[in-house]
Amino acid sequence: MSTVDKQLEEVRETIDEEVPRQITVTDVTYEGPELVIYTRDPREFATDGDLVRRLASKLRKRITVRPDPDVLTHPDEAESEIRELVPDDAAVSDIQFLADTGEVVIRAKKPGQVIGRRGETLREITKTTGWTPEVERTPAIDSPTVKNVRTFLTQERDDRRDILERVGRQIHRDPMSSEEWVRVTTLGGCKEVGRAAYIISTADTRILVDCGDKPGERTEQPYLDIPEAIGSGATSLDAVVLTHAHLDHAALVPLLYENGYDGPIYCTEPTRDLLGLMTLGYIDSAAMTGQQRPYGTEMVREAVKHCIPLEYGDVTDIAPDVKLTLHNAGHVLGSSVVHFHIGDGLYNVAFSGDIDYDSSRLLDGAVNEFPRVETLVLESTYGGRNDYQTDQDDSERKLRERLQDVAETDGTLLIPTDAVGRPQELLVVLEELMDSGTVPEMPVYLDEMIWEATAVHTSYPEFLRNDIESRLQSDDENPFLAAQFTPVGDDEERRELAQRDEASVVLSTPGMCTPGPVRTWLSALSDDPDNTLVFVDKQARGTLGKQIQGGADSITIDGETVPIEMRVETIDGFSGHADRQGLENFVKTMHPRPEKVLCVDGDQSATQDLSSSLYHDYNLRTFTPENLETFRFI
Amino acid sequence: MSTVDKQLEEVRETIDEEVPRQITVTDVTYEGPELVIYTRDPREFATDGDLVRRLASKLRKRITVRPDPDVLTHPDEAESEIRELVPDDAAVSDIQFLADTGEVVIRAKKPGQVIGRRGETLREITKTTGWTPEVERTPAIDSPTVKNVRTFLTQERDDRRDILERVGRQIHRDPMSSEEWVRVTTLGGCKEVGRAAYIISTADTRILVDCGDKPGERTEQPYLDIPEAIGSGATSLDAVVLTHAHLDHAALVPLLYENGYDGPIYCTEPTRDLLGLMTLGYIDSAAMTGQQRPYGTEMVREAVKHCIPLEYGDVTDIAPDVKLTLHNAGHVLGSSVVHFHIGDGLYNVAFSGDIDYDSSRLLDGAVNEFPRVETLVLESTYGGRNDYQTDQDDSERKLRERLQDVAETDGTLLIPTDAVGRPQELLVVLEELMDSGTVPEMPVYLDEMIWEATAVHTSYPEFLRNDIESRLQSDDENPFLAAQFTPVGDDEERRELAQRDEASVVLSTPGMCTPGPVRTWLSALSDDPDNTLVFVDKQARGTLGKQIQGGADSITIDGETVPIEMRVETIDGFSGHADRQGLENFVKTMHPRPEKVLCVDGDQSATQDLSSSLYHDYNLRTFTPENLETFRFI
Repeated sequence: MSTVDKQLEEVRETIDEEVPRQITVTDVTYEGPELVIYTRDPREFATDGDLVRRLASKLRKRITVRPDPDVLTHPDEAESEIRELVPDDAAVSDIQFLADTGEVVIRAKKPGQVIGRRGETLREITKTTGWTPEVERTPAIDSPTVKNVRTFLTQERDDRRDILERVGRQIHRDPMSSEEWVRVTTLGGCKEVGRAAYIISTADTRILVDCGDKPGERTEQPYLDIPEAIGSGATSLDAVVLTHAHLDHAALVPLLYENGYDGPIYCTEPTRDLLGLMTLGYIDSAAMTGQQRPYGTEMVREAVKHCIPLEYGDVTDIAPDVKLTLHNAGHVLGSSVVHFHIGDGLYNVAFSGDIDYDSSRLLDGAVNEFPRVETLVLESTYGGRNDYQTDQDDSERKLRERLQDVAETDGTLLIPTDAVGRPQELLVVLEELMDSGTVPEMPVYLDEMIWEATAVHTSYPEFLRNDIESRLQSDDENPFLAAQFTPVGDDEERRELAQRDEASVVLSTPGMCTPGPVRTWLSALSDDPDNTLVFVDKQARGTLGKQIQGGADSITIDGETVPIEMRVETIDGFSGHADRQGLENFVKTMHPRPEKVLCVDGDQSATQDLSSSLYHDYNLRTFTPENLETFRFI
Repeated sequence: MSTVDKQLEEVRETIDEEVPRQITVTDVTYEGPELVIYTRDPREFATDGDLVRRLASKLRKRITVRPDPDVLTHPDEAESEIRELVPDDAAVSDIQFLADTGEVVIRAKKPGQVIGRRGETLREITKTTGWTPEVERTPAIDSPTVKNVRTFLTQERDDRRDILERVGRQIHRDPMSSEEWVRVTTLGGCKEVGRAAYIISTADTRILVDCGDKPGERTEQPYLDIPEAIGSGATSLDAVVLTHAHLDHAALVPLLYENGYDGPIYCTEPTRDLLGLMTLGYIDSAAMTGQQRPYGTEMVREAVKHCIPLEYGDVTDIAPDVKLTLHNAGHVLGSSVVHFHIGDGLYNVAFSGDIDYDSSRLLDGAVNEFPRVETLVLESTYGGRNDYQTDQDDSERKLRERLQDVAETDGTLLIPTDAVGRPQELLVVLEELMDSGTVPEMPVYLDEMIWEATAVHTSYPEFLRNDIESRLQSDDENPFLAAQFTPVGDDEERRELAQRDEASVVLSTPGMCTPGPVRTWLSALSDDPDNTLVFVDKQARGTLGKQIQGGADSITIDGETVPIEMRVETIDGFSGHADRQGLENFVKTMHPRPEKVLCVDGDQSATQDLSSSLYHDYNLRTFTPENLETFRFI
């Protein structure tokens, strides 16, 4: 009998002792990080409010109680039963079954009507179907992404449970080694922007943090082939932790499954959904430009199926000797600062991922308080000694001026941007400027990908700032519902819209003008001095965006040379990144102050400037790693 | 057909074109680093002196021509034929067949008699047996180690050829990766003395340099289990390179074979033989102290069987992208500074191993001239700011005074030492002092292991300084043949000798008084103030030697407490290591000066002192690695 089975047997004995006889426990398993107790009597289990707490404290495990699948009606049948029980007035938009948890999410325009008087309808639903209802307000914009992910996970519930059980057994295995050490190996993202990928390892465990691509450099992938990564077999990796879903951190996560990895991905729920959206887009854009697809859509599904969503602040066992906690990073919906607690008080490492230390329109600033941190792996995108961004107010003022320009000339304001994060920030600002009459109302064209990412935001209002969260609940105040925001589907439409002689705004992907829809806009708009191009992203070396930003007279798109006559500007205050001051503030006010800082995710001069300042100003041991190096901390 | 087979076919075609028709080439293979041409007509091949050179330059390979095994008489038969051909006067002591090369080594007291008038007898031998004779003078002391190794390799010649062919194909495979990088990973020997073990890796190749134990700390082995080492499977390692045979660099090499490694070990010929001697002793000493044997004797045989001996200065391909050159390190018989040339002019790394920069009685000082070196991995044993050793003359004067003391009191001078290196230096000095009458002649007792190591020295005179080399050829001048040098076989004999009331010297292993014969001497001699203990080795933390050196009043051996009444002294000039000044000189005069220096193989303060001085004085980028770190150089 394996040690995990023996452990589970002991756990089962304790549960049988503790649980009153009238409650039938049908199974006890590890599923991912949780100990799951299946029961035929979920309600009886819940009546003794203290029972789960007592068990958790006795077993020192995170415990979840779920109805035995036998007492759950089949989702199809349950859906019709629910639709019968809930009054039509509620305007149910969709019903999703979360097989992992035995919950059913019921989305309705009027949640109160689903709940019923004193929760009467909810109770009735549980009694009839066995599923535990969760009621949500129907999001303002329907998100196919979120819906597809949930439907897919329900379809794959058997597979999913197998995965979770396997991962659970891995997590709760006995540690093999008595050696105590903690190391970080850099696979990418060092002295460069892009292909973020790091391994944190102990004698027992190896975890990959992020696995991104390098914008404009498809061949420069993270060094996954070295033995410390998956060169020694992808199954030897214990877990992947994803800070956020931007491609420079997430694009190559599905590739791991193509290479045989079959373990979990820990991230927030929106990051999981955006990972699906972004990587499918990534494959498409490769196909569009005639490049080999880096992996198939099947691998995106594998990745999504292996995601284990965590909430900010939850301390979670992800290996015998590693506890993981995600914290808001302020950078983009669902983005996380990732904190590892290694061993029993042995060592703590935090990876900042991309952070914004100040609050933005949508998100609170990054968390920098932890129980303990000895080493911080810190992004340095704007770490250069002159990388000060204009602040929010100033950036908005600049944007307003450019809008007023195009309003006067009936020109187009083109903003290249990635789909997630910046465009949603910009939409909030644009809505406000036009709604208040500060600038004339004009059409704002959004690539469908941007529109879809916006829809994902409306599905996860709880991840946004409180004020935005509540505005999203109201059709009147929801900034994303402004009438002038119009999704654009294809290149023909883009070309047609570009010809119109009226003031307009275009938000189009990708942010660095690497191949994608933005190039269609560029070829149609660049030669007209009435138009304005505004960069809101840092442009990486070698990208078309960098070329334009650098003052090119003309550019070549699909073999055609286009003169650049339009005005070109950069407004960096919407970057979603802390600037140099923000990064310093993040470290300065960090609690506790780390002993060591590894400056990564920035070009050579940015990482070196930041490293040198943090050393001089705060007396920290700082490092500017190269790719392919390993640092030992203890 | 594999790419190697295709390559060999092309090579074969070129050879067939170039070689005159009357010469039959029977086979062309890679064997280890060499391209071997087998022929039925080795003498005809040799007559065209330019043929091999022309082929080598055309094929850009190192070429060896060997007689087809079919034309070689079986060794047993060949031996009787040789004994018949050579006159009895020659006094042949032994005949060894080197199956690898088709050579037969004939050792005789009178080599001239074997050669015959104008080489007549030699030619007759080749004609009769097919083997190519090499004539050597019979060594002054018979070395069972050297003989056993050679006999073993002859017995295993089929296996051996299989190994060499497999290694040859590995070396000549096509490189897989277009990535260009060079890294060093530390598995041991960082901020500590002992368990030296380093991985040098490229995108195509991983090579282990040394694999030692830590004196007095059997559980602290090199970190072999990490994926960069053999955690990902020992067969993924391309090669092992051994700087020298001392246990802190070589003890765990056989363990690699127990773990599934089946690749080559590159080292000098004496290092190979000493590796066998030392590791068999290592197993014995574990067994003696009731510890589990780290590996079986079978694994020592595997290690020896996989050794590919190289000569100093020969540039050898050991992987598609790595050339290796060994240079004299001056530390001990056969010890090497190891130089790697990576890629085609991409990068160069030298590992010093243990070095002595000054010439000693036996060895020339370490080589520090190379075509190119960008990074030096430098030993730091005596790297501390106060680690200045007394010089040779002073050390010899001190030793003389101690000898005079024991001569006066009829005491014993006990010198704990490892078997290889220091004792042979000391024997040369002792012989001179007694022969010249500077100190009275007295018995010098040597552990059998030391005696055996001395015998190995006499088998490889060409690795010693010229003056010693020629003295070894003459029975009258050979310092090791002094009549007072007496091997001691067992503990009973040791105890008996320790009781004798006459002046004597004892050289006994191991140098740090970890379990071994020296403890028997210690327990018999420590309580007598007429005796003197002289340390010639640096004593590592935690060893019994360190305890005594630190001034302990008494020690415990086998549960028995023994008071320390004897005089205790340290004479560090025989260490075989460069001292602080020597290390600085090695770097200062190194040509070319390296850009980076990693200070290893010394305790924390020694590595840090040395690193800091080299940085300040010579403006080098210096590092003091931790174990388990990886440094990328390009």
